[in-house]
Amino acid sequence: MDLNSDLGEGFGAWKMGDDDAMLDIVTSANVACGFHAGDPSVMRRVCERAAERGVVIGAHVAYRDLAGFGRRAMDVAPDDLADDVLYQIGALEAFARAAGTRVRYVKPHGALYNTAAVDAEQAAAVVEAIRRFDAGLALLCPPGSEMARKATEAGIASYAEAFADRAYTADGLLVSRKLPGAVLHDAGEVAGRAVTMATTGTVVAQDGTDLKLDPDSLCVHGDTPGAVELAERIRQGLRDAGVHIGSFVETP
Amino acid sequence: MDLNSDLGEGFGAWKMGDDDAMLDIVTSANVACGFHAGDPSVMRRVCERAAERGVVIGAHVAYRDLAGFGRRAMDVAPDDLADDVLYQIGALEAFARAAGTRVRYVKPHGALYNTAAVDAEQAAAVVEAIRRFDAGLALLCPPGSEMARKATEAGIASYAEAFADRAYTADGLLVSRKLPGAVLHDAGEVAGRAVTMATTGTVVAQDGTDLKLDPDSLCVHGDTPGAVELAERIRQGLRDAGVHIGSFVETP
Amino acid sequence: MDLNSDLGEGFGAWKMGDDDAMLDIVTSANVACGFHAGDPSVMRRVCERAAERGVVIGAHVAYRDLAGFGRRAMDVAPDDLADDVLYQIGALEAFARAAGTRVRYVKPHGALYNTAAVDAEQAAAVVEAIRRFDAGLALLCPPGSEMARKATEAGIASYAEAFADRAYTADGLLVSRKLPGAVLHDAGEVAGRAVTMATTGTVVAQDGTDLKLDPDSLCVHGDTPGAVELAERIRQGLRDAGVHIGSFVETP
Amino acid sequence: MDLNSDLGEGFGAWKMGDDDAMLDIVTSANVACGFHAGDPSVMRRVCERAAERGVVIGAHVAYRDLAGFGRRAMDVAPDDLADDVLYQIGALEAFARAAGTRVRYVKPHGALYNTAAVDAEQAAAVVEAIRRFDAGLALLCPPGSEMARKATEAGIASYAEAFADRAYTADGLLVSRKLPGAVLHDAGEVAGRAVTMATTGTVVAQDGTDLKLDPDSLCVHGDTPGAVELAERIRQGLRDAGVHIGSFVETP
Repeated sequence: MDLNSDLGEGFGAWKMGDDDAMLDIVTSANVACGFHAGDPSVMRRVCERAAERGVVIGAHVAYRDLAGFGRRAMDVAPDDLADDVLYQIGALEAFARAAGTRVRYVKPHGALYNTAAVDAEQAAAVVEAIRRFDAGLALLCPPGSEMARKATEAGIASYAEAFADRAYTADGLLVSRKLPGAVLHDAGEVAGRAVTMATTGTVVAQDGTDLKLDPDSLCVHGDTPGAVELAERIRQGLRDAGVHIGSFVETP
Repeated sequence: MDLNSDLGEGFGAWKMGDDDAMLDIVTSANVACGFHAGDPSVMRRVCERAAERGVVIGAHVAYRDLAGFGRRAMDVAPDDLADDVLYQIGALEAFARAAGTRVRYVKPHGALYNTAAVDAEQAAAVVEAIRRFDAGLALLCPPGSEMARKATEAGIASYAEAFADRAYTADGLLVSRKLPGAVLHDAGEVAGRAVTMATTGTVVAQDGTDLKLDPDSLCVHGDTPGAVELAERIRQGLRDAGVHIGSFVETP
Repeated sequence: MDLNSDLGEGFGAWKMGDDDAMLDIVTSANVACGFHAGDPSVMRRVCERAAERGVVIGAHVAYRDLAGFGRRAMDVAPDDLADDVLYQIGALEAFARAAGTRVRYVKPHGALYNTAAVDAEQAAAVVEAIRRFDAGLALLCPPGSEMARKATEAGIASYAEAFADRAYTADGLLVSRKLPGAVLHDAGEVAGRAVTMATTGTVVAQDGTDLKLDPDSLCVHGDTPGAVELAERIRQGLRDAGVHIGSFVETP
Repeated sequence: MDLNSDLGEGFGAWKMGDDDAMLDIVTSANVACGFHAGDPSVMRRVCERAAERGVVIGAHVAYRDLAGFGRRAMDVAPDDLADDVLYQIGALEAFARAAGTRVRYVKPHGALYNTAAVDAEQAAAVVEAIRRFDAGLALLCPPGSEMARKATEAGIASYAEAFADRAYTADGLLVSRKLPGAVLHDAGEVAGRAVTMATTGTVVAQDGTDLKLDPDSLCVHGDTPGAVELAERIRQGLRDAGVHIGSFVETP
């Protein structure tokens, strides 16, 4: 099981999260590429430190919306979106290569993640950017999403991401953050869900039914108080349950 | 002799210059990378068209100053500057590769060009970015500049750029655009200077003395009325004088 | 009848449209405020020249999307949107006052115009910004739109805008630019529609039925080839038909 | 004696400092206006809370440099700079008025503060923006600076700012942050200097000589660990010394 986290989310004088602490926990780093967060110096530092620790680097690509942190849906034309994504992957690749490694996967961020999960055109645009850059890059996305479908059609490997701290509908969608109960805060419960996800591939949906997710990667957050501790607890829980922790792109 | 031009300088809804016409004239395209001009879609189109015509692609890197078009000096810390330059090269490389080619050289733009010509720290930062990205990339810069020196020290090939439509001081510096006579507007005179530069390596400086520039590349502008015609005239003048026109990076 | 035009749409080194020519034709200037176009220096110049000619100044407020020219729908939270709009009005007011006049109305731009026409929350946010700034400001918007309704509820005067060069559905909506026939290019036809709109308050919709619009203002574009000539022709057509041309905010 | 602090320095998802705590301590709030920090929603909140507490609002105007937090010198043309400053004042005024108050003064931020302290053209540009907006606004700047001179020439009131936690040269300039000893960290020493500045108008310069500053306002920082405590200690120290604490613009 892979553990991924959104890192490199500072910008200029502003900090966010504890990248160093998280890089000791996760196996995959989704690195912001400057469109929603992350400036070149932040990108360099995260890539250097990820490379030192053997953490796999992914491009956390987003809409061009620094003021909204990429969390606001934007009706970007698919051709422009593909160009925007390609730009971001290329920029990050420069830092990954300078650090002696490479970008290995792409994970859309925020509103792009949500939109491309269900919108065929935006999903195709993200996949097209990957194909143009290097068809050997993987896509990290929700299982069963439009992104996963478009990736498969294009011959791009996609990996399924799940969230141990988020409630799911019976259809496999994340419950909107605007609704009560969308985010789980009890560390023990979250760690328990992570273990269940990793060992059985399932999670209990909001309506009590079992939902099959078969995740390849669990997302752990690093930008809230207590986040690092929760991430450590999830990692420890997985270890205690005998789950092998490693990047999805390292597996043969 | 190489002919280079600053291209891809549109942004979003805004156009600048006639990229297609200039790509039929020049042998090297300095492509804006998004910091002073150029959005990802503009970058893609210029790279595709340059690749189709065999025009060599260079990264026209700049300060992060869209509102000032990169023409305002900025006191960017050298480490940050190196990161900014690396980011821009990487972003452009993604489009160059998608178009079946590669970024072959770097030319700083505007205020960065002027500052890095004389400031050892900023010159070193530009060279350091090239070295980190790929020491096989060339640097296009003023002859005898700090940039040229730092490139040589770092084992990076540098090529000398001259401007046929600009007045030079006896020291080999461009006369400031704020001074009268800094920019030559007579097409015949400019074409004549281009031929002299190409065939003798010299130009008559403002004080009437002969200045040795030995340029590898002449910059032709594409963003003013009559610019395309002037560029064509320069190219034709060089041909009529028997000067071989080709990229500096193609020469063995 | 008022004639309005989107002006001040340059940014930094980039120009758009012929502001001076249009300011000789229109009675109301929708001045970009920096979020989709327009930098402070552009804003100053347009305000100065509008003031000299007695052209009324309106704030052309938009989503924060320079790369997309404010033409891409963005899911901005209503509270944030109200703040964004208030910021833009205030910034423009500084230039209007420095030019000896004031901002008299607000017209949303591009995607915000389209969204706030039908979305109650975004419409309310625009109106709330006006109310907070100065309830004496008017709102220029589509007749019968959510914006018009919310303005009325809040005690803000709204004025109806129509487009002589755009096709309308029978419901009074603009036909999407993505559909054929959405934009009329024949100058005579456009001028004729303008006169009909001004004298009868109606326009023939796409399905051939008469549509009642009762416009207070007609929008004339200044950013395409031939735009200035078309605008002049519309103005001349209105004059020839005996229509009084003047700002909606001047009428008692 | 006035106590001022740089507030509203968050942007989008990024926080900086504890505005609420500082608003309980200071009498003047330098509110970021979006060019180096501060988005419209941050500006609204700071203005509302400042108004509730009777804290005077000033426009903390800066170069357009979000990535550099306005701390990098930029060679902005004076005319453009005046426009940039006017834009920022106007934007903030909208929020100040919506909160029932007004912008009462301007304080340049970061690199603009440093440059306009010594550069006559940039100083004049800042003063010109104030004059155009409202000659009744005050300028908060270093005593004896170019800004102070230009303000006086233009009939703008200027007030002298001093820093209790910064070392001064015998010439009255701040010791560069790049040099050792530039920033004082001992809370007791800083509070003591504040009291001395307030009661005698002097401070001991780096070379041991007495320097006359006669400050109208002391700047207290809110963006570092322990900053709030230090600010409280300075305020308490002033009170204990019998110094009246109040805004410079309230004094008749």
